[in-house]
Amino acid sequence: MKFKVKDVDITTGGTLVAILNKKDALMLDLHTGDRLRITRGGKSAVAVLDIAESVKAVKRGYIGLMEEVLEKIGTKQGSVVSIALEEKPKSLALIKNKLDGRKLSAEDMDVIIQDIVNNKLTSVEITYFVAAGYTRGLDMDETVALTRAMINTGKILKVDCYPIVDKHCIGGVAGNRTTMVVVPILVAAGYCVPKTSSRSITSPAGTADTMEVLCDVNLDIDRIKKVVDKVGGCMVWGGAVNLAPADDKIITVEHPLSVDAEGQLLASIMAKKGSVSATHILIDIPVGRGAKISRIDRAKHLKKQFLKIGEKLKMKIKVVITDGSQPIGNGIGPALEARDVLWVLGNYPGAPQDLRHKSLLLASEIMRAYPLSGRKARHGYRYAKELLDSGKAWDAMMRIIDAQGARVKDPAKIKLGSSRFDFKALRDGKVEHIDNVSVSRIARVAGAPFDKGAGIYLRCHVGNRVKKGDKLFTVYAENRQKLAYARDYLKQYDGVIIG
Amino acid sequence: MKFKVKDVDITTGGTLVAILNKKDALMLDLHTGDRLRITRGGKSAVAVLDIAESVKAVKRGYIGLMEEVLEKIGTKQGSVVSIALEEKPKSLALIKNKLDGRKLSAEDMDVIIQDIVNNKLTSVEITYFVAAGYTRGLDMDETVALTRAMINTGKILKVDCYPIVDKHCIGGVAGNRTTMVVVPILVAAGYCVPKTSSRSITSPAGTADTMEVLCDVNLDIDRIKKVVDKVGGCMVWGGAVNLAPADDKIITVEHPLSVDAEGQLLASIMAKKGSVSATHILIDIPVGRGAKISRIDRAKHLKKQFLKIGEKLKMKIKVVITDGSQPIGNGIGPALEARDVLWVLGNYPGAPQDLRHKSLLLASEIMRAYPLSGRKARHGYRYAKELLDSGKAWDAMMRIIDAQGARVKDPAKIKLGSSRFDFKALRDGKVEHIDNVSVSRIARVAGAPFDKGAGIYLRCHVGNRVKKGDKLFTVYAENRQKLAYARDYLKQYDGVIIG
Repeated sequence: MKFKVKDVDITTGGTLVAILNKKDALMLDLHTGDRLRITRGGKSAVAVLDIAESVKAVKRGYIGLMEEVLEKIGTKQGSVVSIALEEKPKSLALIKNKLDGRKLSAEDMDVIIQDIVNNKLTSVEITYFVAAGYTRGLDMDETVALTRAMINTGKILKVDCYPIVDKHCIGGVAGNRTTMVVVPILVAAGYCVPKTSSRSITSPAGTADTMEVLCDVNLDIDRIKKVVDKVGGCMVWGGAVNLAPADDKIITVEHPLSVDAEGQLLASIMAKKGSVSATHILIDIPVGRGAKISRIDRAKHLKKQFLKIGEKLKMKIKVVITDGSQPIGNGIGPALEARDVLWVLGNYPGAPQDLRHKSLLLASEIMRAYPLSGRKARHGYRYAKELLDSGKAWDAMMRIIDAQGARVKDPAKIKLGSSRFDFKALRDGKVEHIDNVSVSRIARVAGAPFDKGAGIYLRCHVGNRVKKGDKLFTVYAENRQKLAYARDYLKQYDGVIIG
Repeated sequence: MKFKVKDVDITTGGTLVAILNKKDALMLDLHTGDRLRITRGGKSAVAVLDIAESVKAVKRGYIGLMEEVLEKIGTKQGSVVSIALEEKPKSLALIKNKLDGRKLSAEDMDVIIQDIVNNKLTSVEITYFVAAGYTRGLDMDETVALTRAMINTGKILKVDCYPIVDKHCIGGVAGNRTTMVVVPILVAAGYCVPKTSSRSITSPAGTADTMEVLCDVNLDIDRIKKVVDKVGGCMVWGGAVNLAPADDKIITVEHPLSVDAEGQLLASIMAKKGSVSATHILIDIPVGRGAKISRIDRAKHLKKQFLKIGEKLKMKIKVVITDGSQPIGNGIGPALEARDVLWVLGNYPGAPQDLRHKSLLLASEIMRAYPLSGRKARHGYRYAKELLDSGKAWDAMMRIIDAQGARVKDPAKIKLGSSRFDFKALRDGKVEHIDNVSVSRIARVAGAPFDKGAGIYLRCHVGNRVKKGDKLFTVYAENRQKLAYARDYLKQYDGVIIG
């Protein structure tokens, strides 16, 4: 069957799509979601059918093609292409099996994840996979299979050292940039730490966003390897390396309903660790009001699951449950957090002690759990403190920053948003709660993480006594309009509860 | 926040969509599926956010809007609009509840179905609703609530008569155009039968497609009422009337995985009946190899469910389980089936006896189950036969056809496809099976239902002895190219199994 091409001038970046008029589709017995092979000359591409209700979109006799398809078959507006029905991906039958409550084998999981990574499934089809995993649950075998499938469909970093240490925080706590303190301490101690991090998804800053204030984080896999081989560690953006790419596509369809299937959470985290060939891992589960995990029993259950999956994947895992009831550090937003980190590493007077303490704790947990032979790793906390106080951790950080292409190394030179205002206490009292969700939201409204200098700098902590008019926090923005947005938002929610 | 409009030149006919560049979305803390209010001057519209990965689709500072949105806010390419984040529809939290295994109340179901009908949910979100109903199951209360919600969000036909009779066939059997024989018999007997039917979805002809050969079927609700008031019955396309419109949107997302949730099937059928205010209903469940229901135990279970839901909805329901193992009638395709129907109603010599017999049976079941007072309804089959043999059913059909705007009333004048060929037996033997799926597929490849004259005319039935070279069936197409497609298809599958 021949159709004239209409260039629909859109790139989805995902599944290839072809649009037919409803009457043409009916005539050809074609339905939304059917796969069509579109051929012109010797070139062809497979696209998913979407059906246009109106002739305005695609007239009869025409086929609407996105730019990716046009490029793939080397054609343009007005050309004639032929179409033929293709078999649907096998993965659909497997997803249906899971939806029906049947267990997926490791091979099944491979097929599904390969199709997701190769953009062969539509968002509706991926949604069925997510919904099936959520309602039927993934057992440990399936979770392990999903993890392995996600690792194997992405790039894998291989560095020549052992152990390869990694850490992960379940998240939800504002500030909390411990990774950027822990990694330098570990590197100073002689550990190999090829750390990849995410950018912010719903928070005002991810570790990658914050590290980017100081140096480049968009390193390809060869450069990461060079950096780690040279200085023993790195802190880069995982998204630049195509590690476990299935994960992002799954997260996109989870978002509308905030579906948080445990199996998928475990697999998502462990796949990122497996992708950097990590052998020894610390998982930090902050618990508290406003954090991602609010209840201790859920944290304990999750801990067990991490230990189980670690065993199956033959990765050493240590899990710590920490206090996630308020922000850690004073800065919230990439530049403000980067400054906190450098202040801690450089033992500056303004350094936030909570961030310093938590980082020392996590570093010492790793050193205690995974001692390097011949090092005095037994005195974890004391040794970590020694590495920090002596400036060795600072030096390690500077080596990492230099290796990744330094931007700023002096905390005084970090550029903060020039539009600022202080949010003050409306009455006397004691700070009873600082809400992670609210302060994160304000920082985002002010421009973080995209505007690096935007965010919040906390001037109080839970337990502090404050008087009416005392500064509770300062909002930073890169322009006045965004500062005004934050001001508006603060009329409703300020995040600091004074009892 | 202000954006310049890019007209993306696409109409989806469903949810309103707005596209932002990935960096703009990140900066504004916006995610795929978020709702945006887009305002220009005094006009505004709410659209669902989609995020473009590449600048090719939507550059920074621009917002890609579909034509429906542009029309709604009265703007065009290059204009400046402002956007603001809107709350997500409440229905999402309810769908999440169902996904978590909690029961939906009647009010919950109303909210969800209203949002689906009003295009407020994306296909991903509707998929979660379908997946939740499928994996968690809808109990009878939920199924009833879904049915009522679907009825109430569409138009409702009200005619002044009682009982209001309707029939429904679960489908999957080729030919089987019993409705078009049963309705005239019932109308001749004095029943009120406001029959709405679907067009074909996966078959070569729906009742609406077939009736359209003889007269208009695209009647609006006022005209349907006039027809029924005048002649006691009608046979029209339900799709023209917006009856239970939620159903179509649900079916679209069920299709990719062929998800057939029982609750949704029951609700879908009963909603169409409720939308025409039917009080007395016959459900025909054909069972057999190649039919939609292949196993008798499933048919019996479904029968029970229909009886239960009928009780809850206070609608009388009679269920018959019939033989669905082979096509009924000889014609498959709109014109060929319409000719079969008129032949049966007019007692023509070529009338297919299986179609005549099954129609008499169904009509008599209805008359026996729902006797009209003062009529000799007790002798159902005999009375039905009398109405048919006497020409009273034919007369009723002619009145209906005239009332709906007659096209053809003489079966000899029905236009069949001019390109034809006979498919002949390759060897001697007995016809052991005629496969519904295969013959339907051939008829569709030949052009049915879009090409009314296309299809298949069967020249043998199961049990017939045939000799090599005997005609098994004739394929009709409206042009030679499509006939060639059918010929190609027949090289692989012919649908007639000779033992």
